Amino acid sequence: MRTQVAIVGGGPAGLLLSHLLHRQGIASVVLESRDRAYVEHRQRAGMLEQGTTDVLRDSGVGERLDREGLVHHGLELRFGGAGHRIPLTGLTGRTVTIYAQTEIVKDLVARRLADGGEVLFEARAVEIDPSAPSVTYLRDGRTHTLECDYIAGCDGFHGVSRPAVPGLRTFSREYPFAWLGVLADVPPSTDELIYAHHERGFALHSLRSPQVSRLYLQVSPDEDLAAWPDERIWAELAARFATDDGWELREGPITDRAITPMRSFVGEPMRHDRLFLAGDAAHIVPPTGAKGLNLAVSDVTLLARALIERYASGSEAALDGYSASCLRRVWRAEHFSYWMTTLLHTDPHGDGFAHRLQRSHLDYVVSSTAASTTLAENYVGLPLTR
Amino acid sequence: MRTQVAIVGGGPAGLLLSHLLHRQGIASVVLESRDRAYVEHRQRAGMLEQGTTDVLRDSGVGERLDREGLVHHGLELRFGGAGHRIPLTGLTGRTVTIYAQTEIVKDLVARRLADGGEVLFEARAVEIDPSAPSVTYLRDGRTHTLECDYIAGCDGFHGVSRPAVPGLRTFSREYPFAWLGVLADVPPSTDELIYAHHERGFALHSLRSPQVSRLYLQVSPDEDLAAWPDERIWAELAARFATDDGWELREGPITDRAITPMRSFVGEPMRHDRLFLAGDAAHIVPPTGAKGLNLAVSDVTLLARALIERYASGSEAALDGYSASCLRRVWRAEHFSYWMTTLLHTDPHGDGFAHRLQRSHLDYVVSSTAASTTLAENYVGLPLTR
Repeated sequence: MRTQVAIVGGGPAGLLLSHLLHRQGIASVVLESRDRAYVEHRQRAGMLEQGTTDVLRDSGVGERLDREGLVHHGLELRFGGAGHRIPLTGLTGRTVTIYAQTEIVKDLVARRLADGGEVLFEARAVEIDPSAPSVTYLRDGRTHTLECDYIAGCDGFHGVSRPAVPGLRTFSREYPFAWLGVLADVPPSTDELIYAHHERGFALHSLRSPQVSRLYLQVSPDEDLAAWPDERIWAELAARFATDDGWELREGPITDRAITPMRSFVGEPMRHDRLFLAGDAAHIVPPTGAKGLNLAVSDVTLLARALIERYASGSEAALDGYSASCLRRVWRAEHFSYWMTTLLHTDPHGDGFAHRLQRSHLDYVVSSTAASTTLAENYVGLPLTR
Repeated sequence: MRTQVAIVGGGPAGLLLSHLLHRQGIASVVLESRDRAYVEHRQRAGMLEQGTTDVLRDSGVGERLDREGLVHHGLELRFGGAGHRIPLTGLTGRTVTIYAQTEIVKDLVARRLADGGEVLFEARAVEIDPSAPSVTYLRDGRTHTLECDYIAGCDGFHGVSRPAVPGLRTFSREYPFAWLGVLADVPPSTDELIYAHHERGFALHSLRSPQVSRLYLQVSPDEDLAAWPDERIWAELAARFATDDGWELREGPITDRAITPMRSFVGEPMRHDRLFLAGDAAHIVPPTGAKGLNLAVSDVTLLARALIERYASGSEAALDGYSASCLRRVWRAEHFSYWMTTLLHTDPHGDGFAHRLQRSHLDYVVSSTAASTTLAENYVGLPLTR
């Protein structure tokens, strides 16, 4: 089999790339190792920068997003028993939208299939040749080879694409904590996200829909989920979100729970020969800054532009600039995610000096317009060209 | 002997406090362990926040400062072979002034003596009783006791005041580098300060006067000054300040050189009974943010106000609030100084991730108006009431 662009991985990055290329008449095949139901139901992030919603909307897959997405204009930092609103839109003129990654995947799968796109589920890539170029994959118990002009490695952190980049330089950081995340069938106790810093640890109150709350607790990286029955989770959340004026957290049935480790990772460069890495295949951020999905979208948006230019004009200039362009944005997001993470989490190894410094930093972020704006402009996302 | 306020230490903090009290008719005695010539010639900081110059000017000791001080409206961050100006005044409406601490001390000593103030040189405090209250000191080979209403501990990090606060809680951080500072008889190669980040280490080009340059190099904390002959110092400075467009550093005779360790320290609270700590006696910042002298001035300004209120009305309310008021400002300065230090120095223990993050942070600080403003507003100094 042969196509113009072989796309390894059918998550939001791979599907969106395939969709953007199709709109300009460029053929692609998406190879996804899991089945469709699995892909459409894995729980992931759901905070979209305005630039991300713009890309989805402008490419014609924003209809349900516009109908069901929750547009937010601010967030709350809570510490010392009090809340402090950061007016994201007031400070930046931009908004963010809550719309779960799994919904984006459903929208993109439906659209690709309606457009006659080739999305091969249960097709597991096993070998990538960035120079031939070609992708070898297993499907229906047999080995197939997909020949192509270019390969997009959108197969996440554990995929086969990144190892196919020889001499990749890697940068990483592990954090001394993880997130215990739950989905609960209870209307959110807040209209906007609450990022809480507490000496017991960080907590986040997010929203999935008007009926479903998404809540997170900082826990130890080796925490045992079995040690967290529902009552303990709710008690701990209530303690960390407590305010001096008696704010109350609504409780409800917990329908999903998982512990997510926190990691920062970047591989450089994001290209080797005809292979281009995008999204989690190239970089990981801790979830605090809500940047993972947005980075994946900006990567494939740049990659689509570069491939479109290549097929339209024959010029590989934009493809040659792809890695450096992405990495500037990636490192900005890495820095911001690290900054948000260390600003808000309680470092189990931190001494008194570190804790006092952190508290002064929090006080400053909520009392200085300039400091609030640094948080806001990174959170809503910097312009794609930067 | 008896006075209203016993002031331990004749540096800028103690002398300014004595002066401010005198202007409201409150008597004080300053005990300084060194002789006058020593005090007037120790080389220290020289970057004054606008709030600091306001205090000196408003209290009538700003005449020479206004004549000889160099008013600055910006500074330069230099890295990656290029300079980036931070327009301090453009971003904040405020200025900073270069005027060496030793000059402030000369001005204050002259003024206190002209006003008949009691500044006892070579009077070494040996014991402080915060409750009597009294200060025991040695002078002319004899032991004296100074009885008083209140004691101001302005005797620096190694003084006897801080140990007289029982149950003091301390917070500190050592850094894996020090500064090698030189004074050179050569006109500065720049009109504004240059803070340079380089993989070889941080460097700072400051100014003492139109004829004298002040230059600093990041070195190891256990560096041997003997290993740094003039040629090596100039070569290292030139390497760290080098730009892609061939900027040149003027060289000249080095007249003073010293290695200064970098330390952060805070003692809490800043008061015990009738004893009030101010300046370096209570806290130390690394010099990168130029905050040490300015914090000392804001401490004694608040202390003077509180003592004036006490003698005018009998109320100790402002004295009771002194420690908490100072500490809010102290921790802001501690955080800023830590931030500037880690932003600009090369961490010898840092890995690739840390270095990439630092570079992204630097790029952000000079490309985002909000981020530049966080640097600028801390550098010029936040309002005293904050």
